[in-house]
Formats: sequence, structure tokens, C-alpha cells
Amino acid sequence: MSNKSTNPKGTKDYGPSELLSLRFIINKIRNVFISFGYSEIETPSIEKRATLYEKYGDEGDKFIFNIINSGEKVKKADIKSLSAGKLNQFVSSISEKGLRFDLTVPLARFVAQHFNEIIFPFKRFQIQKVWRSDRPQRGRFQEFTQCDVDAIGSNSLFLEYEMIQIYSKVFRELGLKDVKIKINHRQILNSIANKIGISDSFNEFIVLIDKRDKIGSEKLRNLLRNDLNIKDSHIDYLSELFDYSGKFSDLINKITNEFSDALSIKATEEINKIYEMMENSDELVEIEFDLSLARGLNYYTGIIYEVVAPGSSIGSLGGGGRYSDLTKSFGVDNLSGIGISFGLERIHLLMDEKNLFPSLKVLSNDILIINFDINFVNEIEQIIYGLRDLGRNVFVFPDSIKISKQFSFADKNKFNFVIIYGQEEKDRGSIKIRILDNGSEKLFKLKNFVHEFSKM
Amino acid sequence: MSNKSTNPKGTKDYGPSELLSLRFIINKIRNVFISFGYSEIETPSIEKRATLYEKYGDEGDKFIFNIINSGEKVKKADIKSLSAGKLNQFVSSISEKGLRFDLTVPLARFVAQHFNEIIFPFKRFQIQKVWRSDRPQRGRFQEFTQCDVDAIGSNSLFLEYEMIQIYSKVFRELGLKDVKIKINHRQILNSIANKIGISDSFNEFIVLIDKRDKIGSEKLRNLLRNDLNIKDSHIDYLSELFDYSGKFSDLINKITNEFSDALSIKATEEINKIYEMMENSDELVEIEFDLSLARGLNYYTGIIYEVVAPGSSIGSLGGGGRYSDLTKSFGVDNLSGIGISFGLERIHLLMDEKNLFPSLKVLSNDILIINFDINFVNEIEQIIYGLRDLGRNVFVFPDSIKISKQFSFADKNKFNFVIIYGQEEKDRGSIKIRILDNGSEKLFKLKNFVHEFSKM
Repeated sequence: MSNKSTNPKGTKDYGPSELLSLRFIINKIRNVFISFGYSEIETPSIEKRATLYEKYGDEGDKFIFNIINSGEKVKKADIKSLSAGKLNQFVSSISEKGLRFDLTVPLARFVAQHFNEIIFPFKRFQIQKVWRSDRPQRGRFQEFTQCDVDAIGSNSLFLEYEMIQIYSKVFRELGLKDVKIKINHRQILNSIANKIGISDSFNEFIVLIDKRDKIGSEKLRNLLRNDLNIKDSHIDYLSELFDYSGKFSDLINKITNEFSDALSIKATEEINKIYEMMENSDELVEIEFDLSLARGLNYYTGIIYEVVAPGSSIGSLGGGGRYSDLTKSFGVDNLSGIGISFGLERIHLLMDEKNLFPSLKVLSNDILIINFDINFVNEIEQIIYGLRDLGRNVFVFPDSIKISKQFSFADKNKFNFVIIYGQEEKDRGSIKIRILDNGSEKLFKLKNFVHEFSKM
Repeated sequence: MSNKSTNPKGTKDYGPSELLSLRFIINKIRNVFISFGYSEIETPSIEKRATLYEKYGDEGDKFIFNIINSGEKVKKADIKSLSAGKLNQFVSSISEKGLRFDLTVPLARFVAQHFNEIIFPFKRFQIQKVWRSDRPQRGRFQEFTQCDVDAIGSNSLFLEYEMIQIYSKVFRELGLKDVKIKINHRQILNSIANKIGISDSFNEFIVLIDKRDKIGSEKLRNLLRNDLNIKDSHIDYLSELFDYSGKFSDLINKITNEFSDALSIKATEEINKIYEMMENSDELVEIEFDLSLARGLNYYTGIIYEVVAPGSSIGSLGGGGRYSDLTKSFGVDNLSGIGISFGLERIHLLMDEKNLFPSLKVLSNDILIINFDINFVNEIEQIIYGLRDLGRNVFVFPDSIKISKQFSFADKNKFNFVIIYGQEEKDRGSIKIRILDNGSEKLFKLKNFVHEFSKM
């Protein structure tokens, strides 16, 4: 088998039974989204370069998959840029489109484009694939599914709380009650950056902090020192905030005392208000206010979230936050949005690890028709249609091979029933059914078989 | 709004209500597939270049979307090929992956890769997106969804018939009873090509015939004359076969008489047997044996199908056929396959044109909670959870704006109920509900509201 090809690294094939468990998760998530009043939309996988770029920040942009212009258009390749090492410029000379990196930027584009048809506040969800040319490893895919729920056109802090409700509801329904939602506020990170004098490098600061979980505290210290020239006393200060493990109220008081500008006050008030709303509820998973939570993407402006599974090597199960200005880059001002995302494949991995899937049955493997000869199958065609009309799923074995082999196929695929109609049955005007569960057989008159079967 | 960006040409955004009609079609198709005993799989959108290329023929290959290698890898761009005008070679120097062009080649790759896990015959279906860099126009998309059903590992002619059953069942269930399934046999086209002495250019011949519906008979004549050097008498002969409008039996007799080699005899026997099986059934849509049906892709070897909607400008609604050798190119011999595809977006367009969608309701727009203030909403949180547990979908209006505006939002979005809980209701320990259908209102005790609502 010399030419054997495989699926690309960082992608995954789903066979029938594995797809069922994936669908199990999707259905739970979709139903929660709907139950919270969100409506589903879909956008194309491909977006124009102008839509995708300069929204995520350098860190995002560099992982976008670019599509080569078709046909003669590649002749416009900017070879000078290539030889000058300006790879982005070279790529942009032969690529007008790319695969979406997330569902948030396409949502902002959708909202701006269809602005006049949408009734705001617009609560939408979207369950579709995204692509990132990140280095693949366990739990990190190049093609994966995001399940996003967003509300656009409202500043209400209730939505910040609702996102926590949605995360909690989904993970509890999936049996993952021990996940933890980390929250932070971009404005507080801003205030911290100001305080240590690196507000000009805020985006780089965010990208570095975001790597903390991957690289560890020590390496982060080095990066902060070397890349951003932060002095040691400030790094110590950051470590103190990032590694804080005391009570929420002490940490929020510390922040409140240290930052007294209007934006910081508003941010701490928002965090406080969210905690206040949570007090009434026993439906939530654990929440942790974590100043080291940064989220790598540029567009967040307020509260940010990330869901982690303590004790698991699988990365974050989802994340999100408030983005106040995202539609502005598509020409629509003053339209704040907030949203969270669930990483389907990672949740799937984690649930698989924890054996959380109920035994799911491949629906199509219900009734198998033994094939003695095409003509026999053809004769009972009306019966087969009748069974399907009853909602039963009927698999006609295509080849008239040895009967024992056909039965073995039925066993391996865990069919419920096997229907036997050959010369013997035909001569007697009957049809035989075997119940694979217990091996028992029943003989029916051909005429009223479907009716009799429906009563079984 | 200067920066307004739009979705790329040849792609489509689906808002909530349009997505519902798309889902309506998908569910019908999926349920038919399952009822015929087929199991669902999913494969990645991205495949390796080696998987995709040289499977479809030049005509397919040239419409594959290529993805540019990430990061430093583009430095390997083969500039010499570019300046020599060898664009394919240039593209292959900077692209190792592409977007799948159909679901059949990925299926063949899947079957070869997972050969040892699969129990044959493998009846699978797959409903996923495919991409083609074809020039976009009405009904021709660059990103679209194929709904494919295939059986691998059996030569049984019953499957040729089953594909007709599946097409018929789906289109009848969708209310498109007047579609027509054209069928032909690649071997007969082969025999015809042999007869007129162009067997060496068979693939080019197929590609040209495939264009007939688009370009018309007259232009096809010119192409056959100029591109393939077919002489006029042979072109007349082809026209006679292609434009044949008489009885099936006369045409098949003509073919049987003219071609007496073993392969042709087998092919006509297959066509005859399929017609024989169809005789017993009144569940099928119209079938037409059409010698001008070619299908543009290289991998077909036997019976081929195409579904058209007479009187519509939308192109074919689906197609497929028998491919005996496709897994061979992935290192697995002797594994014949057959399958058909449904073009989702085109079916959607056609059904929309014919007003065939039932009135579908956006599920999430069920109960709206009026927001007098976040605190009031927070107080009835347990009630909201209770309603959701009943299976109801509850949309909390996020902002405490003017009540009339919130009601207007509920009206525009066709909510069923509005729940009112403000100071007045709080003071009375009650909760009010308005039924938007008739404008009536009901007052409930706060305590047992969920229970009372469940009985409404």
C-alpha cells in the first residue's frame, strides 16, 4: 500500500460511533444556547483577507490559513517581497481570502453587513469549524469546531453574568461539573500595564501573559524582562498579582485601592456586580478571579473568560469576553458585543478521557435484510418501504453472499433485527425475523408483516 | 461605513430563519440516509495535496482551493516555475494542502486509511462543505454543502438501484416530485469513443460532453470538431445518440446491437436490470436514460446519475455514480464503490423559488423576560431555570430600556410569551405573563409559577 495517504496533522476523521459522541456534545450545547434565547446563524468558512486581518493582533494573524488565488492570478506574485523576506507582503500578493480563525470576527462582519435586517439586541449562536495553522499537538487542532454564543448591541452587565450561566449549564449537563471559569477584566490589565509603564506595549504584554499556562511562571518572568524590559521589582509585583491564591474579596479590595482612575473603578465595580449576581445561584460551576488571565486576541475590551479542567493536560475548553469596538472596524460604531466559545474537540477528548459518554447506538444499524438474491429483495420492496415509514432503519445487504457471513455482519454491527426472505419463505408466503438480542426467530405472514412488526 | 466588508463571492451567510429552512432540508436528507441503513462520518475540510490531486482529472484539479504553507515555508517558492509560466508547479512549491473538492475522494482516503477498522460493505453518508474555485453565479457556489451517500466494498447492482430509491425518496419528501434522474453508463460512453476513434482522448471527450447543458448542442459540435478532431459524420452520429428522445427500449436495443464487446454487453445488461427492478416500484421519480450524460470527474467507471429540475435555471441538484478503482490510488485494490450526492444550496434555492418551505419558527423566540432592572431579573432566576427545565426557551432582555421598546422587540421577533416582573409584581408576590398571540395577560403567584405555567 505505497500510496496510502492520511488526513493532515492537526485534523481528525470521525467514524460513525465517534461522530455520535461528538453530536451528543453538540446537541447539548445547541439546546442550552436555544434555551437561553439565542438563534443560530452560519457564515462561510472563507472570508476576505480584509475581513480577517488586523483583528486578532499579530499573534492571531500569523496563524491564519491563506488561500492561493486561482488560475492566472498567481502571476501577480510579488517576488521582490519574497526575496526581501517580507513574507506577509508576498503572501498578500497571491492571496485574497483565508479560512476563518474564529467565529467572532465573522460575526462582526455579518452584523455590519446585515445591519439593517437585524433586530438588536442580537443574540446569536454559531457552531462551525475554524482553522489555525498552530503547531498541532494533543488537544490542539488545526481544524476544529467552535460553539460560539454572543450577544451584540447591548452593554448590559447582565450578559456578562449570562455567559457564566451558559458555561455552567453546558458543563454541568455534560457531566463536567468540576471545570473552573477563570475571569478577569482587560481594563484592570490595562491599569496594571500603565502602572508599570508599559502601556505602549499592551498587546505584546497580553500575548506574553497568555502564554503563562503553557510556558510556566519562570519563563514568563524571563520573557517579560527580555522582551518588554520590565524591571525586576515590577516583575515581582506582577507575580504577586498573578500567583495570588487568597480570597476574592481581598484581591478585589487590593485592586480597588491601587487603581482609582474612572475606568479601573468601573472595571472593579463590574467584577463586584457579577459576583453579587452569582450569590443567588447554586447552578454555577466554580469561578475564579485570576489576574493572570489575558486571552491572546486583540479585540477584547472588558470582562474575559477562560474555562479550564483542573488536573487535565488538555488546554482551555473555551474562552471569550466583552469586545466593545469590533464592528467598528467594519464601519459600524457603538455596538458592543460579548460572547463565549466552547472548543468541541477538546471537550470531546476530555469526556472521552473521563468515560462520560452514555452508550450511544448507531441508529442506522436497526434492521438488516438478508440478501438471498436481488430478486427476493426486490419482491419485498413494499415491505421495506413500509418499515421505513414506521421510522425503522433498514439496511439491505447488497450482495447475496453466504448467509452465515451476512449474519456475522449483522452481529458485528449490532443490528436489532434480521429479516429473512428466501425461496423457502417465498414458497410459504411468509417472512422470518430474527431478534439478534436473544437469537429468537418469528415467522409472519407476508401480507400483514409491517402491521404485525409495528406491534412488536 | 467605509470599511464595510462582505462575504466573498460564491459564499452565503445564513441568518436564523434562512438557516432553519436549510436545516429542514438537511434533516429530511439525513433521515432518509439513516432509514436506508447508512451511517454518518465526517472528515476534515483540509486534505493533503497528494490526496486531492490527480483524482478528479484536469477539470477538477484546476478548481481546487490551495492553502499556502505557513510561516517560513513560503520561502521555498519555486520562482523559476512561476517565471516559466508553470503555475501548477509554482503553487505546489508553496502549498501542501487544499480544501476538499468533493466528499468522494476524502471517503476513498478514509476507507484506505481506516481499512482495518471498517466492516464491509461500508454504507456511509457525509453532509459537509466542499469548495471549488469555479466562477460564481446563481446556483453555483464556491463553498457549498454536499450530502453524500456511498456504499463501498460491493459490486452488487442492487446498490445502483438503491441510489435511485434514495434520490426518489428524498426529493419526494422535499416536495420536489418532478425532478428527473438522468442515468448513463461510462462503459457505453467508452464504447462510443472507441467506435469514433477517440478512445485516447476519452477524458477530454467526457469533459466536453459534460459541458453540453451549459453551452448547448451547437457549441459542443464545434468543440468536438476543433478540440478532438472528430469528423462531421461522427459528430452527426453523436448528436443522434445525445438528442435521442424516443423510447428507452429502442435506445437500449440500438446500443445493444451496435456494441457487442463483453464490457458493452455487461453495461447494457446493467441498465436493463435496473429498469427491470424499477418496474415493481411506484415510489420513484422519473428516470431518463440519457447518452449525453457524462459527469466531468475522472473517477466514475460504471453507472452515472444526475438529477435535474426541468424548467429551472438552477443547475443539477446532484449526481454520482459507480467508481470501481478509487481506493486503488490510496493503495487498496478491488474495492468498488458507488455513491450519489445532493447539492444542498441548490435544492434550497429551488425550494425557495417554489415556496416549498413550511412556516418554520425560530425556536429560541419563545419566552421573553422584560428587564425592569438587572436585580428584578436576578430575583426570578430560579423561575427562569425552571422554565428552561420544562424545555421552554427563555430570552432575558439584557437592558432595562423603555418597556414599550422591549414589547416591540418581542412582537418583531414573534415571541410566544412575555414575562413581566417589576416593582409592582414584586410587591404583590406575583408574576405576570402576556400571551402575544392574543394580547391577553395572566397574573400568577410567584411561588408556584413554573408549575402553573407548565399546565398552560
